[in-house]
Amino acid sequence: MTVRLSTRAMQTHDQPISYFMQQAVENPHLISLAAGLVDPDSLPAALIRDVMDEMLSSAGTAQAALQYGTTQGYAPLRDKILARAMALDAIKAGDVALDADDVVVTSGSQQLLYMVGELLLDPGDIVITEAPSYFVYHGTLTSLGVRTLQVPMDEEGMDTHRLEELLVRLEKAGALDRVKLIYTIDYFQNPTGLTLSMSRRQHLMELVRRFSKKQRILVLEDAAYRELRFDGLDLPSLKSLDRDNRHVILGMTFSKPMAPGLKTGYGLMPSDLVAPLLRFKGNHDFGSSNLAQHVLDRVLESGAYERHVEDLREVYRRKRDTLLDALAEEFAGANGVKWTEPAGGMYVWLTQPVETGPDSRLMKAALKEGVLYVPGQFCYVNGADTTLPKNEARLCYGVASLDQLREAVKRLGRAAACADDLLAILS
Amino acid sequence: MTVRLSTRAMQTHDQPISYFMQQAVENPHLISLAAGLVDPDSLPAALIRDVMDEMLSSAGTAQAALQYGTTQGYAPLRDKILARAMALDAIKAGDVALDADDVVVTSGSQQLLYMVGELLLDPGDIVITEAPSYFVYHGTLTSLGVRTLQVPMDEEGMDTHRLEELLVRLEKAGALDRVKLIYTIDYFQNPTGLTLSMSRRQHLMELVRRFSKKQRILVLEDAAYRELRFDGLDLPSLKSLDRDNRHVILGMTFSKPMAPGLKTGYGLMPSDLVAPLLRFKGNHDFGSSNLAQHVLDRVLESGAYERHVEDLREVYRRKRDTLLDALAEEFAGANGVKWTEPAGGMYVWLTQPVETGPDSRLMKAALKEGVLYVPGQFCYVNGADTTLPKNEARLCYGVASLDQLREAVKRLGRAAACADDLLAILS
Repeated sequence: MTVRLSTRAMQTHDQPISYFMQQAVENPHLISLAAGLVDPDSLPAALIRDVMDEMLSSAGTAQAALQYGTTQGYAPLRDKILARAMALDAIKAGDVALDADDVVVTSGSQQLLYMVGELLLDPGDIVITEAPSYFVYHGTLTSLGVRTLQVPMDEEGMDTHRLEELLVRLEKAGALDRVKLIYTIDYFQNPTGLTLSMSRRQHLMELVRRFSKKQRILVLEDAAYRELRFDGLDLPSLKSLDRDNRHVILGMTFSKPMAPGLKTGYGLMPSDLVAPLLRFKGNHDFGSSNLAQHVLDRVLESGAYERHVEDLREVYRRKRDTLLDALAEEFAGANGVKWTEPAGGMYVWLTQPVETGPDSRLMKAALKEGVLYVPGQFCYVNGADTTLPKNEARLCYGVASLDQLREAVKRLGRAAACADDLLAILS
Repeated sequence: MTVRLSTRAMQTHDQPISYFMQQAVENPHLISLAAGLVDPDSLPAALIRDVMDEMLSSAGTAQAALQYGTTQGYAPLRDKILARAMALDAIKAGDVALDADDVVVTSGSQQLLYMVGELLLDPGDIVITEAPSYFVYHGTLTSLGVRTLQVPMDEEGMDTHRLEELLVRLEKAGALDRVKLIYTIDYFQNPTGLTLSMSRRQHLMELVRRFSKKQRILVLEDAAYRELRFDGLDLPSLKSLDRDNRHVILGMTFSKPMAPGLKTGYGLMPSDLVAPLLRFKGNHDFGSSNLAQHVLDRVLESGAYERHVEDLREVYRRKRDTLLDALAEEFAGANGVKWTEPAGGMYVWLTQPVETGPDSRLMKAALKEGVLYVPGQFCYVNGADTTLPKNEARLCYGVASLDQLREAVKRLGRAAACADDLLAILS
């Protein structure tokens, strides 16, 4: 006798990345540029140990941290999250109609993405993302039965002129009332490493206001990587351009700048969305780990957070430089090979002259050589669409060491040469 | 311009308990028997501090705990969870067709309840719970658009003969194919403190098998309080009676026996449900706090978990005895006042001769005296149903100290006397 699953369960699919996670587990000699893990050696073990030691040595603070917390999150932490977000944009909370009650602490930023989906989206609603974009979020949207449309990117991030054309087309087709949400990873995007430029930021906000005709269109600004900038000047968040706090939900996380093991992220959002979102959060878990929140509150309070992020920038800058140098050396003069040069974050987007997909010759050769990447086609919503590029790859320099990065690129070079040879023989 | 929320958001309501949480925050002199918090003084601060200290002092173990984990949960912890669950029932995993791959670690047991709902339930599907039952779960079911039916309880827990009658009626009405799930808190139930008897356990399992005609009916066994037994012999879990691992999803938590701040629970479930459930978990958060899981793994490994639970039983036994003694003294000879005498857990179910609801004279008098309880009607699905009792209350002895418990009952006595007087005057 079988179990009859829900309609949503039937449209909730495996993450394509699962297969690659499995590969990495089964083959320990593999160097993975696929997994989006963080640099292990810079994880703040001593810092968290010392904070735990102090906090758990006093009965009052220990009990507060080990007891249940609140659904919205620890209030002193929400104050500090707001203060830090405002400091990044060099503005005051009052300038953008925000206060700490507009902050919600979540189990990583992924839970924020999930709950925002539940809050806003009915089957058939439209969400617009960048092409390519974060594949885990695409899975969430598919599970919700949503129609996901993608807008191409260039060196300035999402091409907002193409977004404008899309919105005009949707309006003409009478579908503007189904456009609920625009999702952008606007700093050092996962998977491309590209950043939304200032003029595009302004254009995006202008479009969102202009096309909020039938209902208010929201922007989900996923700024998970913002704090990991190595080069150039920081850009203002979309949230800071949303002066009335009406359109932008800003999602960030402590996973990248501090530790994924704490599983703590947060959102800053329009005030009228907070209560309905918290109703979902109450049903999910009535509050994320209180212990992790109390640790993070102390880490922010002491200034250790800021110092750690400063160190991390150096760590990831070196890793990025190592990967880019190795790519330049390995693929010097190779026709049709190019890659992005991110100013921050953890990802490089590689374009090859051959297909990169899971069944491609390149992938097979790469696995044989002992290197793993994420096939670029996983980052497009409709991978079966023949007009979409099939020759890209996401390379993550988060977890591999400098030596491993150099070796991984050599292996990738050998795999590409092998795939090229095969191509030459077969064509 | 308003935001158009999803259909689900429109049917996702505030937890009624929010009001009482707020009362407790606003009035620090209030003694709350409403909040389901755990005893603060017995929270294992030193234990967790020492485990953190050791784990975070070695680079290898620190990095493993602070990095991302897996969606299903830390494998060594899942092994130990399974071993402990089997030890509680004095059986072998093989006897009930379970292995560690049937264990999923969640953000508290609440997240398991939520995801099981997403996995199984479409709007209009039927879930059967006990009357009364855990109000947070009712909120989740309402949010999913499910039809919740309730079966009365007596001293032996859910009245399975009434359950049988209900299933027969549903079958006659052609609605048996909508019955997806039976939810039971079968040890020291929240809110009544009652436990499902052995013969009822067997009857329940027999019914579930017999009525799995159109599809497999599942039992969600919420055993959050099982380990906190003070008196009498332990009873086998429903899971242990599900020899083929087909019908029972067992949910448990580390919040009560260890610390809510760790926000870690788990489920043991039929093998064919694991992969579809993990697809939801992947979209929710791709894994609960890895740091908390590594701590719990060590606490289980060292035997400290078992010792701590043993201590906790003494702590809660004293609290239960204190509350029951105070009730006996305060309400000796009072007509129409009675209460349950739980053999474990954290809850006593009180019946009064007067109404106990949020707008009742008793509630107003109680707030004035400085004591808070959960109105019993919140624990029934349809609080507006006039046939449901309106004169019950949930008393939680988890968080209050022994002195506070005595004082709380005195205040409750004064409030009841006041409400009685008013009743006499007005009638």
